[in-house]
Amino acid sequence: MPLYGDVSWLTILAEASEAEIEPLVLAGVLLSLITVYLAAKIGGELCARVNLPPVLGELLGGVVVGVSALHLIVFPEGAGETGSVLMQLVSTTTDMDGAGLLSVFRGESEVVSILAELGVIILLFEIGLESDLKELIRVGPQAAVVAIIGVVVPFALGTTGLIVLFNIATIPAVFAGAALTATSIGITAKVLAELQRLSSREGQIIIGAAVLDDVLGIIVLAVVASLAKTGEIEIQNVVILIVSAAAFLIGAIFIGRLLSPVFVGLVNQMKTRGELIISSLVFAFVLSYIAATIQLEAILGAFAAGLILAETPKHKELEEQIIPISDMLVPIFFVTVGARTDVSVLNPLDPANREGLIIASFLVVVAIIGKVVTGFAVFGQEGINKLAIGVGMIPRGEVGLVFAGVGSASGALSESLEAAIIVMVILTTFVAPPLLRIVFKDSDAAPPTEEVELASAQSSEEQPSVS
Amino acid sequence: MPLYGDVSWLTILAEASEAEIEPLVLAGVLLSLITVYLAAKIGGELCARVNLPPVLGELLGGVVVGVSALHLIVFPEGAGETGSVLMQLVSTTTDMDGAGLLSVFRGESEVVSILAELGVIILLFEIGLESDLKELIRVGPQAAVVAIIGVVVPFALGTTGLIVLFNIATIPAVFAGAALTATSIGITAKVLAELQRLSSREGQIIIGAAVLDDVLGIIVLAVVASLAKTGEIEIQNVVILIVSAAAFLIGAIFIGRLLSPVFVGLVNQMKTRGELIISSLVFAFVLSYIAATIQLEAILGAFAAGLILAETPKHKELEEQIIPISDMLVPIFFVTVGARTDVSVLNPLDPANREGLIIASFLVVVAIIGKVVTGFAVFGQEGINKLAIGVGMIPRGEVGLVFAGVGSASGALSESLEAAIIVMVILTTFVAPPLLRIVFKDSDAAPPTEEVELASAQSSEEQPSVS
Repeated sequence: MPLYGDVSWLTILAEASEAEIEPLVLAGVLLSLITVYLAAKIGGELCARVNLPPVLGELLGGVVVGVSALHLIVFPEGAGETGSVLMQLVSTTTDMDGAGLLSVFRGESEVVSILAELGVIILLFEIGLESDLKELIRVGPQAAVVAIIGVVVPFALGTTGLIVLFNIATIPAVFAGAALTATSIGITAKVLAELQRLSSREGQIIIGAAVLDDVLGIIVLAVVASLAKTGEIEIQNVVILIVSAAAFLIGAIFIGRLLSPVFVGLVNQMKTRGELIISSLVFAFVLSYIAATIQLEAILGAFAAGLILAETPKHKELEEQIIPISDMLVPIFFVTVGARTDVSVLNPLDPANREGLIIASFLVVVAIIGKVVTGFAVFGQEGINKLAIGVGMIPRGEVGLVFAGVGSASGALSESLEAAIIVMVILTTFVAPPLLRIVFKDSDAAPPTEEVELASAQSSEEQPSVS
Repeated sequence: MPLYGDVSWLTILAEASEAEIEPLVLAGVLLSLITVYLAAKIGGELCARVNLPPVLGELLGGVVVGVSALHLIVFPEGAGETGSVLMQLVSTTTDMDGAGLLSVFRGESEVVSILAELGVIILLFEIGLESDLKELIRVGPQAAVVAIIGVVVPFALGTTGLIVLFNIATIPAVFAGAALTATSIGITAKVLAELQRLSSREGQIIIGAAVLDDVLGIIVLAVVASLAKTGEIEIQNVVILIVSAAAFLIGAIFIGRLLSPVFVGLVNQMKTRGELIISSLVFAFVLSYIAATIQLEAILGAFAAGLILAETPKHKELEEQIIPISDMLVPIFFVTVGARTDVSVLNPLDPANREGLIIASFLVVVAIIGKVVTGFAVFGQEGINKLAIGVGMIPRGEVGLVFAGVGSASGALSESLEAAIIVMVILTTFVAPPLLRIVFKDSDAAPPTEEVELASAQSSEEQPSVS
C-alpha cells in the first residue's frame, strides 16, 4: 500500500539526498542558534541594565535579526526571493544552489521552528512545575471571571467600534475583534517568573486566566474561522472543542494525580542516567501530543504535565534539572517570535501604512482597556493588586499573530486591517512587560519565599522591591 | 538577485503551507521523541540489569523501533513505500496525505536527525569538559601511536586479505579496508563515561586516539572517495585537509586558552538567566560550525570547546548544567544510530546474505585484531591496561556506516561487500561495550576520584570494582 500518492516527491527526495543536504542543514541550524543566542543575550542584557524585563530584550533582539532588519533569521513565509542572509552565507561557502539550497533553507527553518515550539513547551512545563495546583483551583473562580471578561469586553468593544466608527463589514470586524481576545501565556508567564511573582496570588490568577484564555481563544478562533469560511457557525465543532478542552484539562489533572505515585515509583527503580528528566519529558510530551491531537495546543498539555509533577516529591529535583534545558530552548521561542514580526507596518512615513495605523491606534486602546478592566472584576480577594492582573493579560504575542495569519489566509481581512491587527499585537506584546514591572513595583505585597529558587539563577537587580 | 533557480519549489512550499504542515510536524516530532525515549530507557535499563553498558541498550532499543523491526523511527532513505508507522498514525488521525504527508514526514525526519546531531555535539562537548587537556597532551604520543597503528593495520590486513583471499578488485577492497580504520568516538566515550574510566590514563589515551582517528578517518575517506571517483588520489585536497585539521585543533586550543579569561569575565558580567550555559553553547556551536565548514566534523569542534572550557574556573558549574541537556539529547543520537541500522543483513537464512556474511566474518576478525593490537604498541606507560585500550578502539559505529554509505553511493561496492561492511560495523559496535566492561573489570587500577561526579547520576551497580 503506497502511502504517498505523488511519487515525483520521492524522486526529489532521492535527488537532493540526505548525504548532501544534511551536513548543510546542520551548519545552517548551528549558525541560526548562534545568532538566536547572541540576539537573546545582547537584547536581554541591555534590557536588564535599563531595568526592563529581559524577555522584552529577547523579542527586540529577534526583531533586529529577523525579517524587519538584518534578515539573519527568516522563515519561508517571509523569505521573499533572496532567502535569509545566513543561507546566502551557506551558499557562498559551498557550491550548493537552486533546489538544493532551497531544500537546505527549508530544512533549517523547519528545525528552528520546531526547536522554538519545543522551547515554549518546555517553558509551559516549567511554569506548570512552578505553579501550585491547589492555589490555582482556589483562585479558579477569579481566574475564570478575568478570562471571560477579558474575552467579552475587547471583542464587543472592538467589533462594534470597527463597524460603527470605521464602517468595516461585519465578518472582518468580527475577526479583528476576535484577535483582541487573545492572551500570550508564554510572554506573561516569563515576565512573571522574571519578576519572581509567579506564585503570588496575582501571578496564579493571571496564569489561570491566561490558560483559560488560551482555551477560549482556540474556541473563538474556530468560531470566527468557520464564520469567515462558510458564513455560519458550525455549532457541533464548537461543542466538541469545548467538551474536549474541558475533558482534557480535568482528565489530565485527575488521572495524572492518580498515576503520579506510579511515576515516582518507576523513576526510583531506574538505574541509568537521566531517569527523572527523561521520564518527565515523556510524560510532558505525551500530554502535549494528546492536546495537539484534539485540536488544543501542545503547550496546554505541557502545562498540565508540569502541574501534576509539581505535586510529586521529585519536583524540586526536576525544577533544577529543567532549568538548563529551558535556558537552552526558551530563548529560541522568543527570538523567533520577534524575528517573524515585520515591524515595517509601524512606519508612519509609508503612506500605505496610514489607514492601518489609524485603525491600529483604536485597536491598541481597546486591547489595553479591555484587558485592564478584567483585574477590577476580581472579587473576594483583599489587598490584591487588581491593576497588575489586568496588565498581565495585555500581551497578545504569538496567539494574536495566529489570528492575523488565519484571517489573512481566509481572505476575510483587508490589508490595512491585517496590518492594524499586527500593530496591535506588536504594541501590546512589547508594552506589557515594562508596564507589568511598573505596576508590580508599586505593589505592597512581598513575594512568597517559594520563588527564591527560580530567582537564584537571576540577576541581583531583579530582587523584589519590598517597601 | 533570485537565490533559487527553481521557482516551482517556491510554489510547492507555498502550497504545503507552514500553517497546515507545522502542527503535524510538531506532533510527529513529539511522537518520535516519546518513542526514542521509551526505547532508550527500556533498552538501557534492561542492559544495566544484566550488567551490560546502558548505551548498548539504547542502540538495541533503536534497532527494535527502527528500520529492522517496528518501523516506528525510520528516515527517508529507509522508508520505502510505506513510510514510518508513526507517520501512518499521523495520517489516520488527520486527513493529510500525498505530498503533504510526505512533506510532514520529511520535516519530522529532518528535525529528529538534527536533534541527534545536536546530541552527539553535546556529548562530545561534555566529554571534552570531563577530559584533561594536560593529560591528553601528556599521553599525546601514545595516543598518536594507537591511532596510526589502528588505521594502518586494519587497512593493510583488510585490503590485502580481500584481494588475496576473496579475489575482490582493488578499488572496492581499498574501500572496505578504509571502512575498517574508523573508530566511533561517541560510543567509546559514552561507555568509558558509564564505566567511570574517562579520566583514567587508559581512558585519556583512548579518547585522544579516537579523536585523532576521527581526523585520520576523514582523510582516509577523502582519499578513497577520490580514488573511487577519478581513479587517482588528489594530493592537493588531502594536503589541505591535513593542514586544516591540524591548524584547527591546535589553533582552537591555543586561541581558546588565550580567550577563555575574556569568556569568564563576560559571563561574570551577565545578569540574566542562563548566562553560563548560553555563552558556552555559543562557544561550542561556533567551533562546531568552523570544524564543519572546513570539512572536518562538527563534533571535533564541540570536543575542542569542551576541552578549553574545562580549564576555566566555571567548569564544575558548567558540567552540572550540561548534564540535563545531555540526558535529553544524547539518547536521540544512539537510538537513531540503532534505528538506521538494518540488521536483516545478519540473517543467515536468507541466501542473498551468505556471500556477504562470509566476507563479513573475515572483516570482523580483522576489525577486532587490527584494533586490539594497537594497545600493545603503547610504550613507556607502566601498569597500563593495554588490552583495554585496544578494545576501546573497536567500535566503528556511525563512522563506519558513513564509509559504507559513501562507498555505496560512489558505486564502488558490490551489494555483498556493502552488506559485509555493515555487518562488521554492527558487530564491532555492539560487541565493544560489553567487552570493554569485561577488560576493565579485570584491571587493577582504581579510577581516579574526579570521576565521582559523572558517576553520581548513575547506578549503584556501576561502582568500579576495586580489587
